[in-house]
Amino acid sequence: MFVLGIDPGLSRCGYGVVEQRGHKQRARAAGVVRTSHTDNTPDRLAELQVEIRSLIKDFDPAVVAVERVLFQTNVRTAMGVGQASGIVMAEAITAGCKVVEYSPNEIKMAVAGDGSADKDQMEHMVRLLLNIATPLKPVDAADALGVALTYLANHGVPAGMGA
Amino acid sequence: MFVLGIDPGLSRCGYGVVEQRGHKQRARAAGVVRTSHTDNTPDRLAELQVEIRSLIKDFDPAVVAVERVLFQTNVRTAMGVGQASGIVMAEAITAGCKVVEYSPNEIKMAVAGDGSADKDQMEHMVRLLLNIATPLKPVDAADALGVALTYLANHGVPAGMGA
Repeated sequence: MFVLGIDPGLSRCGYGVVEQRGHKQRARAAGVVRTSHTDNTPDRLAELQVEIRSLIKDFDPAVVAVERVLFQTNVRTAMGVGQASGIVMAEAITAGCKVVEYSPNEIKMAVAGDGSADKDQMEHMVRLLLNIATPLKPVDAADALGVALTYLANHGVPAGMGA
Repeated sequence: MFVLGIDPGLSRCGYGVVEQRGHKQRARAAGVVRTSHTDNTPDRLAELQVEIRSLIKDFDPAVVAVERVLFQTNVRTAMGVGQASGIVMAEAITAGCKVVEYSPNEIKMAVAGDGSADKDQMEHMVRLLLNIATPLKPVDAADALGVALTYLANHGVPAGMGA
């Protein structure tokens, strides 16, 4: 089973695909969809939609797990994150995937066992759990893998059990 | 030429189609796409996407004009509005439409000549400009027609010239 994790954003939308086979978890893809801030918002959203649709088509995930948007950050960024997350969730449902949302705190708890884990700690734990030797750059890709791992940790397969 | 105006929202997404023929402007459709707050967000977003795609297919608008989301309202509502606007804009670009965004203030100025116009005044002006005898309910439908009229007012055809 494949789980696609998404760290939504308009400038950078992180994605990570984790495969669960028996008790083994393996990263199958991780990266970032970028859109240029010099393009206008509607074009960027359409570009993101095409990329997300393509990712879902390529990996056929059973589940798409999305980091829930919280609005304590600045308004401009929050807007783009909201728009991006809307597109991701609609595309995933239309493709027949189960869609779940997790708060940043839930993701940190599931991956690092600590709701106040910082970016470096999260990247370290994601690599450890998925047995990835090289650093995950950019950080959005590691975050997205963490979102996928959160789903697996919450559904009977503890994160890292198969790493 | 058809212009589709959108007042984005997750619970209620207003839409209004205005036809411009020569100097005449006519409302061709107005209404609201509703999704139920008892359903979960991803399903609601997918439902909205289907409805918006269907509206664009039916009316084949050259332009989709969207009210820009401002974040002074409450966080939960703002999130849904952001997600809905993202879906609308991506669908419109993919369908080949020109997409424009207007702030609430720009819409009020274009339709009522007054940036502080209230809901009733806006509904009244939209009906006057489009020569609509009956009240427009719900107000989201009137708002959406106002967004469409704003595009026409900003592109060489003053609102009401053909009414």
